[in-house]
Order: sequence, then C-alpha cells, then structure tokens
Amino acid sequence: MPEPTARDTRTATTAVPLHPLLAQRWSPRAFDPHGEMPADQITALLEAARWSPSAANTQPWRFVVARRGTPAFAQVLAALAPGNQVWARNSAVLLVAVAETVDEDGAPRPWAQYDVGQAVAHLSMQAQAEGLVVHQMGGFSADALSSAFGLEERFQPMVVAAIGSHDADLVLPEPLAVREQATRTRLPLAELLVGGEPVALPRSA
Amino acid sequence: MPEPTARDTRTATTAVPLHPLLAQRWSPRAFDPHGEMPADQITALLEAARWSPSAANTQPWRFVVARRGTPAFAQVLAALAPGNQVWARNSAVLLVAVAETVDEDGAPRPWAQYDVGQAVAHLSMQAQAEGLVVHQMGGFSADALSSAFGLEERFQPMVVAAIGSHDADLVLPEPLAVREQATRTRLPLAELLVGGEPVALPRSA
Repeated sequence: MPEPTARDTRTATTAVPLHPLLAQRWSPRAFDPHGEMPADQITALLEAARWSPSAANTQPWRFVVARRGTPAFAQVLAALAPGNQVWARNSAVLLVAVAETVDEDGAPRPWAQYDVGQAVAHLSMQAQAEGLVVHQMGGFSADALSSAFGLEERFQPMVVAAIGSHDADLVLPEPLAVREQATRTRLPLAELLVGGEPVALPRSA
Repeated sequence: MPEPTARDTRTATTAVPLHPLLAQRWSPRAFDPHGEMPADQITALLEAARWSPSAANTQPWRFVVARRGTPAFAQVLAALAPGNQVWARNSAVLLVAVAETVDEDGAPRPWAQYDVGQAVAHLSMQAQAEGLVVHQMGGFSADALSSAFGLEERFQPMVVAAIGSHDADLVLPEPLAVREQATRTRLPLAELLVGGEPVALPRSA
C-alpha cells in the first residue's frame, strides 16, 4: 500500500464526511520558495473574495496584493513578526486583508471584521481548489502596513495571508518543523453548541 | 435549448472561472417550508465550521442550532427583525453564530468576529456542497438572543443564518420577490485593491 502523502495525513478528522476542499485544507508554513502565481490565479482568488456575502452587500473588504520579489512584498514582510518572516518569505504572494470599519460618511460598519473573515475564507477555498495553500497571520504591525501603503484610518489590516505552493520536502527550522507535523486539533463539536435544544450528534463527534 | 434554472442565472460573473461551490453560492430567501435537515447534515455543517482556521487556533465560535418546529426555533425567529421573519420562518434550521469576544480569563480575542466570519463561510461551503442554501442576517436583537439562550456577556451573537432547501417556485411577498430575482452585483475587482503594486487584472474584471 502506498504511504499516505503529507496532505493526506493532515485531513480533518470528522464525524461525517466533509467536502474534500474543506477536509483537506490546512495552514502549512512550508512554501515552495520557487513557486509563482500567474495573474489569472491571483484574479481567481480575488474574485472568490469579491463574491462573498456581506451585511447589506456592503463588501467591506480591501486587499494589498504583494508578489515575492517586489518592493511591496518586502514591505509586507518587514511588517511581520520575526517568527513569521522566517517562513513567510518563501510564499509566492503576501496578501493583506483590510476591513473597512467605517464608511466614507463616517458611519461604522459593525460587520466589517466578520465579513472580511468570510471573504478570506472564500479566497482560501479557491486557493485550495487551485492546489495552493494559505497560512493566515495575526502577528504583524498594523501601523507599519497602514503607513507603508497609505491606508486611511478607517481601513484596518486584519490579517496577512501567505499564499503559494506547498513544499512538503522543505526543511523548516525548529520549532516550526515539529509544529508542521503536529496533530491538528479542534475543540469537540459538543463544546461549540450553546443554548438551544440538544442536537443529536454522532458519538464520534 | 433548455431554459437556465434559477440557480444557473444566479452564478457569479467573474473574469476567470471560480470553483462551482463558490460561483454558484448565493443567498436566497425562498426556502422550502417542508425541507428538513437530517442530523448528519447538521453535523457536517458544524464540522465544516469547527475545522476553520483561527488566530492561534483559539476557535472563538459558538453556535445555537434551532430546527423548525422546536421552541428554540420560535425563540430565534422572534428575535429577528419582522422583515426577516416573513421568509426565514420557512428555513429548516436557524443557526445563531456567536463570537467569543473575551476568553474565560477576561482577555480580549481581537480576531473573534473575523474568525466567526471564517467559520460561517466554511459552514456555508459545506451547505452548498450538500445542496442546501444559506442566508445570513444581521437584522435581529442580540439582547433577545442572549437572554433567550442564557449567553454570557463575553459571547456576542454575530449573525443568524437561515439554512435549508431552496424552493425556486415559492412565491415571496413583495418587495422580496423582486429582490430575489435582481441581478447580483459586486464592486469592480480593481476597487478592492489598495496600496501595493498594480496587479495585472483581466480587462473584464
């Protein structure tokens, strides 16, 4: 029998089957340092985000797209926490996802952060469908990004996503190498349910 | 040639092809009033949410699951804005997505709302894969939901999602019937890009 591939062993353990795009998605740090994303692939990812749902279709998501080797990439990389720079420098694209927290007239958008989360999730699904991987980071200086890219105050950088090709053979420095192989874990399903009626869940959940 | 189905005509218009689960997803209000969701289907949706990525794997998402015909469903329905009650009452499940904005020790979770958005997006993708539709709502009383389900103050109801089977033949009252058929729109892709280098986008985007 063939050995399972690295991706196989990362598949989510679920009580009932999930669509493969969801079951097989995870967040590696081992990016192929030679991987590149053609323009059409970047467009596909942005289109996926663009067609996300949002509160009253307000679409409070904006993006900085920076390809490896460009000045913009260097600026985003420099804004990352040092521990993220180590591996994120190999990604093909660093994408800054920005929330429009206040509209042009000064009115708050209460679902801006939530909706940006949705948009990046849609983008990640398209990336998975394209055979790419995505690793989102919260460890960065929002001020450095706002300053580097001249973002208005009403725009809040929420995450930086490293996107590119997974290289399962790439050797990461410790402690990242161990973390890359660690068993993926989540809270038990039952702990996610609050209030309401008891939902009949399979035992294995 | 056969007429396009209602779903066909709702497919997103994109510069490059998207995965069908993303391209065909939209947010109808016409739910089959007889549609029911088996327990395994509910479990699949929750598993999809459960395996979403989150900041440092904090998993700040919680859910109230209420099936049509139960007291919990009546409580969620009663918390909705009247304009949402009209159509959401036909959904098979009303799901309240809740953000754990503060952890058990009182420390804020700055990505809670963002991560709940991701989780509901993953849930929506699984729903789409199951042939179900999802319509998220921001029009509800969070206080009424917190009170009805005894939620701690650190838990914030973010959205209520109506989930069930689409019934393209269901006649909605106006102005919903017109809205259901309206062309789906999004901002041009170029308007979503801020800062950074110019990204080569296809003309049609």
